[in-house]
Amino acid sequence: MSATNGFKEVSENFSHNIQQNPYGPNPADYLSNVGSFQLIESTLREGEQFANAFFDTETKIKIARALDDFGVDYIELTSPVASEQSRKDCEAICKLGLKAKILTHIRCHMDDARVAVETGVDGVDVVIGTSQFLRQYSHGKDMNYIAQSAIEVIEFVKSKGIEIRFSSEDSFRSDLVDLLNIYRTVDKIGVNRVGIADTVGCANPRQVYELVRTLKSVVNCEIECHFHNDTGCAIANAYTALEGGAKLIDVSVLGIGERNGITPLGGLMARMIAADRDYVLSKYKVHKIRDLENLVAEAVQVNIPFNNPITGFCAFTHKAGIHAKAILANPSTYEILSPSDFGLTRYIHFANRLTGWNAIKSRVDQLNLNLTDAQCKEVTEKIKKLGDVRQLNIDDVDSIIKDFHADLATPAMRPTTSGLPKVPHVLEGLQESEEKRAKLN
Amino acid sequence: MSATNGFKEVSENFSHNIQQNPYGPNPADYLSNVGSFQLIESTLREGEQFANAFFDTETKIKIARALDDFGVDYIELTSPVASEQSRKDCEAICKLGLKAKILTHIRCHMDDARVAVETGVDGVDVVIGTSQFLRQYSHGKDMNYIAQSAIEVIEFVKSKGIEIRFSSEDSFRSDLVDLLNIYRTVDKIGVNRVGIADTVGCANPRQVYELVRTLKSVVNCEIECHFHNDTGCAIANAYTALEGGAKLIDVSVLGIGERNGITPLGGLMARMIAADRDYVLSKYKVHKIRDLENLVAEAVQVNIPFNNPITGFCAFTHKAGIHAKAILANPSTYEILSPSDFGLTRYIHFANRLTGWNAIKSRVDQLNLNLTDAQCKEVTEKIKKLGDVRQLNIDDVDSIIKDFHADLATPAMRPTTSGLPKVPHVLEGLQESEEKRAKLN
Repeated sequence: MSATNGFKEVSENFSHNIQQNPYGPNPADYLSNVGSFQLIESTLREGEQFANAFFDTETKIKIARALDDFGVDYIELTSPVASEQSRKDCEAICKLGLKAKILTHIRCHMDDARVAVETGVDGVDVVIGTSQFLRQYSHGKDMNYIAQSAIEVIEFVKSKGIEIRFSSEDSFRSDLVDLLNIYRTVDKIGVNRVGIADTVGCANPRQVYELVRTLKSVVNCEIECHFHNDTGCAIANAYTALEGGAKLIDVSVLGIGERNGITPLGGLMARMIAADRDYVLSKYKVHKIRDLENLVAEAVQVNIPFNNPITGFCAFTHKAGIHAKAILANPSTYEILSPSDFGLTRYIHFANRLTGWNAIKSRVDQLNLNLTDAQCKEVTEKIKKLGDVRQLNIDDVDSIIKDFHADLATPAMRPTTSGLPKVPHVLEGLQESEEKRAKLN
Repeated sequence: MSATNGFKEVSENFSHNIQQNPYGPNPADYLSNVGSFQLIESTLREGEQFANAFFDTETKIKIARALDDFGVDYIELTSPVASEQSRKDCEAICKLGLKAKILTHIRCHMDDARVAVETGVDGVDVVIGTSQFLRQYSHGKDMNYIAQSAIEVIEFVKSKGIEIRFSSEDSFRSDLVDLLNIYRTVDKIGVNRVGIADTVGCANPRQVYELVRTLKSVVNCEIECHFHNDTGCAIANAYTALEGGAKLIDVSVLGIGERNGITPLGGLMARMIAADRDYVLSKYKVHKIRDLENLVAEAVQVNIPFNNPITGFCAFTHKAGIHAKAILANPSTYEILSPSDFGLTRYIHFANRLTGWNAIKSRVDQLNLNLTDAQCKEVTEKIKKLGDVRQLNIDDVDSIIKDFHADLATPAMRPTTSGLPKVPHVLEGLQESEEKRAKLN
């Protein structure tokens, strides 16, 4: 032990400390809903505003059933006044008898509210722009007018015995006093939820935390949050909102929505599992995320992004030598999310020049060959050498290993391989197999 | 004015307040580097650990030049001990005479350091696993050993007159006291930067802020941060780290790296422009982001994710009626990022059932036709009706508008159109044009 660098060596009781989850809810956040959040799934509302989305009735029903099976708490639908078919679809989905509550999303206007309450929904989500931008360039109304409209619509919806949410739009560019005033007003009348919306997708996490915490001190009802993803913070903002005391998060499958969308369902599940796996797994069928994403991706004709959390083709692929070594010893070293939670599998990418001998040794074992550690290191060098020249596939690596093994077995009959090992070119067409496997992951 | 809801109506001086940026740096963050951050671009190191990456020398040089032209502060390269070609490529890039400083990334070991300092790099990034997971399952060393190795390597690299960074790996699962001890130790010897790494991609923004702030109180050198994106928070964590006083962020083009990667360059630029556009535009050629992303996407054979910040095909596409209306009046209503900063254009998606009459009126004007507001509303209803039946394209809408206009012009000669308007089916093949335009955006 060195005295110079000031370390006090403590007992290295790994197993004890490793049990703790440093990514769990912060005990100091006493209003946190990280372990008790709910989902408002908006693929059939916000998602319909995605550039490529056109959902016919059959597709909407298929998506609604899949979301319900997954376990979302609410399903939000396009306003019934958007078009005649939108209204009919809303009615059809209300009649499905799903476990999830059905909501529709309308402007803060009696014309919309009167149609909405007749569709059979369990609740109505009302929204109005409160920022000076939207007040000036969208509806042109002042805060008094907004408050009066809100009161009228809320009391009307409540009189029908269904849930009501009042949300501002573009909340982070709204005047804080105006915002708190209107929220307190509607909370006093009695709403189920008030909503904060980062409509332009530019809020940052600590700003979100502050606003949620402040609002939490003003209203008694639950807080719902809606985050656009223009600056890539929609998942983090959702998490931080829950830390601050928000209860419900708006999501859509793959995040589809206006522009580049909102908090994605799958990505948020990854985030929440890291924080409270037990809660998430007890409530949501996370192994259905891949099917859900494939269903919606097909409906709107997009590909799953290569870097998507959980389902991106390489989300559980490990490549660098030191990563592969540790993952083989204990997957938790470089993975907090367990691929098996999602019905997926881990993949150690060993066919490349960054590979290490631990990954190759693992492959040697898979091939049922017997090599010492020293021999594994030797064959790894050969593999890295070829990997420097061109992209490798699994067959390349297997050939090199088998060749090396054969040479060891019959040293007298074959000359020692030197330089680049011989790799049968006919195998190159099989490169697909590795790609396919990676994609399946 | 109503006295009942407690509003104090203030002067509605829109132009005054709209100048403020609510997404700017928080004045309370007195250590913030949001307006003075630097980029360590790691496409050629972390990015090479991406499953699909195999960069030959020519590609590496092309990427390095493009990154340098973009304006990144540092370019980080794969360790020269990863393979023989890795070392040669590192030397070749050092000889290019780029403005960006060239770094290489090595394990905390003299064997690696001795090779690294001979390549011609401007600095060496040293990393060692400090979490109990990595100490147990990766290198198997205790904190004293780590400190001794660090001191030896740092003093050696410094003796060569080049920059040195010391980073822990898996910092958020490391013991805080151990971490602060080792950072203080290396800071006292004198390093250019210490690094925090969320190696497993599970840190959350407020946790990042806390650690950075704490570390900032312990060391005098700059702080660099490295965030993986497994739970979708890599951009937000980077931003929050800067708020806390970190100075440098590791990025890669499209975020490529181990598993689903790290903080993406383009996404971070979106985030930072929202906070401090002047700083970002003064330093980085953000209009080159699209080219950079296309270059790297092609090299690793992936598609730009449909929902990518800035360059996703629909990042500046507006669809819902109320969004389109406001955007037409003032783009800032629903856009903080200006597409023209990135050499891109805005697109109002009006060919769908969610369209509104303001968007249609704008199209009528584009077509040089003369319709009153009432007539625009009438033709919008017809468009929405067809949009309920099937997916629309621009030609559908244009046909309906022209048909409607022609009917108005010659009322006696043509019967009033009723029900669904006639749309020439031969135009359906042209649906591509809208998709193409959307993709170009």
